[in-house]
Amino acid sequence: MTGQTSVSGQVTLAHGSGGRASRELLRTVIESSFGHAVTQHDSAVVAGSDSLAITTDTFVVSPRHFPGGDIGRLAVFGTVNDLAVAGADPRYLTCGLVLEEGLELSELAGICSSMATAAAEAGVDIVAGDTKVVARGQADGMYINTAGVGFVDDRVHLGFEEIRPGDVVLVSGDVGRHGACVAGMRQDFGLSHDIHSDCAPLAQLCRVMLEAGTVRYMRDATRGGLGAVVTELALASGTRFQLVEDDIPVQGAVRAVCELLGLSPLHLACEGRLVAVVAEPDADAILAAMRSIDVGSGSCRIGVVREGDEPPVTLLTYLGVETVLSLPAGELLPRIC
Amino acid sequence: MTGQTSVSGQVTLAHGSGGRASRELLRTVIESSFGHAVTQHDSAVVAGSDSLAITTDTFVVSPRHFPGGDIGRLAVFGTVNDLAVAGADPRYLTCGLVLEEGLELSELAGICSSMATAAAEAGVDIVAGDTKVVARGQADGMYINTAGVGFVDDRVHLGFEEIRPGDVVLVSGDVGRHGACVAGMRQDFGLSHDIHSDCAPLAQLCRVMLEAGTVRYMRDATRGGLGAVVTELALASGTRFQLVEDDIPVQGAVRAVCELLGLSPLHLACEGRLVAVVAEPDADAILAAMRSIDVGSGSCRIGVVREGDEPPVTLLTYLGVETVLSLPAGELLPRIC
Repeated sequence: MTGQTSVSGQVTLAHGSGGRASRELLRTVIESSFGHAVTQHDSAVVAGSDSLAITTDTFVVSPRHFPGGDIGRLAVFGTVNDLAVAGADPRYLTCGLVLEEGLELSELAGICSSMATAAAEAGVDIVAGDTKVVARGQADGMYINTAGVGFVDDRVHLGFEEIRPGDVVLVSGDVGRHGACVAGMRQDFGLSHDIHSDCAPLAQLCRVMLEAGTVRYMRDATRGGLGAVVTELALASGTRFQLVEDDIPVQGAVRAVCELLGLSPLHLACEGRLVAVVAEPDADAILAAMRSIDVGSGSCRIGVVREGDEPPVTLLTYLGVETVLSLPAGELLPRIC
Repeated sequence: MTGQTSVSGQVTLAHGSGGRASRELLRTVIESSFGHAVTQHDSAVVAGSDSLAITTDTFVVSPRHFPGGDIGRLAVFGTVNDLAVAGADPRYLTCGLVLEEGLELSELAGICSSMATAAAEAGVDIVAGDTKVVARGQADGMYINTAGVGFVDDRVHLGFEEIRPGDVVLVSGDVGRHGACVAGMRQDFGLSHDIHSDCAPLAQLCRVMLEAGTVRYMRDATRGGLGAVVTELALASGTRFQLVEDDIPVQGAVRAVCELLGLSPLHLACEGRLVAVVAEPDADAILAAMRSIDVGSGSCRIGVVREGDEPPVTLLTYLGVETVLSLPAGELLPRIC
């Protein structure tokens, strides 16, 4: 309960990357101060007469408008998806706005409308809100926090500890699109209009997956991309994830942006994609269920879970060479979500 | 569900005041975009097998450390109190951090520790969190969002519509202390060490009040102070609140800061005070219960609810003159919480 006096240094952009530095900050500063772990999953599930899933996310994406969405849409779907991958039925959102003095009211209204539309699409109610205004130069336009509450069916059992060798790894569509879309806009390659963010709600997808077979664990691949998710799952479950590089779907335009920027699509954020680890006998049925939903029409099997824990994730290249997937230590693209 | 195209103008600091401009922004921009009202109360209470109370608040207070608390303590108690005054038993908090690049990690650790201590004092668990980092100049150090979930006993019925003429208005202690504390620090009058923020959790106080008699409505007096709360309650219930100026407790040092700054203590934020409207026959019993708790030891009866609705709030001065309490239109003290 008492603060550590030994922490020194400053916050860096790498601390916001969703990668190794983020995990380090959470572990050494935030959780050790709280005296306990905050949930490692996307939502905390707390016991009650119904199980409640509770989550929070702040959105600072820049630019605020991009092909396929805006900060408001992202803020609704991001939190809905964190509830959905925890196996919850997303129900209620809160909306905390930090506005910079000088923001155009018309833009604020447009983003709030966008949140309303997104909430209706995802079947959630925005039930409470708060607005703070800070002076010019104390924020960059606007930041949005959404916290979410959902209900979890008692029959749902998702957890790192459920993951075992022989399980199959699925992804719900092509990866890296949100990150490439935002990066493309910032750099003005003239490519950006080719890439739409994948920003979408995943609750219906999660529901049909849970009905179709045994899902061990799901996670939406946001900051840090597919790479961060599979690394975290492998580390947390003490297994090794063996992925087949060619089986991971990536749009051509996303590949092009990645080549220009020297990034891997596996490390770029998605905002409407999930990674699932499922029981091998049920993999085909779950995949078929995923493909029956629009947002999951591009779902694929991308690898398997193996015994052993070092290295956590390997990639089989198209030449059959097994390479190690390493996490970037720092921040590739600040303010991607 | 569609955005209004007619909104023009920019966000101003007045929009963050908690006063008239804030209400206007909420009504004309945010709620009309959402297509429905967000809760007017401190928490939304949503129906379920248990009734859930859900709330959110973002904290941008400057400076982050002040006598009697810091931004972390404020962020925990602020959200706990919003749940408590809704009649809920506060249970779970989320914590969304926006950190500016360059923030000292030791300060972050201290504030997280402070949140942990505050959560333990208030009997809530911080169950989920999120951290975003923005570049230098895109935030001022750190902002904290806390969302909260609590359970509401079915026997609790609080609402604007419960307020009726003849009811008694109570306050749980001296007012304006948090605002005067922060204002004093900013202006460096050499007075600040005399004034400690009243920052405190109110859940236990609310519990004993609800057990002691019929409470019509409660609200913690934060941004906009006591004045904003009583005005809002009078307007929402279509009644007139008649307060007795001399009965409203204000610390001497708070009065002194207010005189220097030309502010009224009735418009300064509190962070550990609530205003309650209670049934007249139960007022003494409720007051006694409030005074039995440390945080409510300075509780007072400050006025009554009258028929009629114009002006919403009057003050009886010590000469027996009835004056009108008007709300400041703009922002007295930006970033007070």
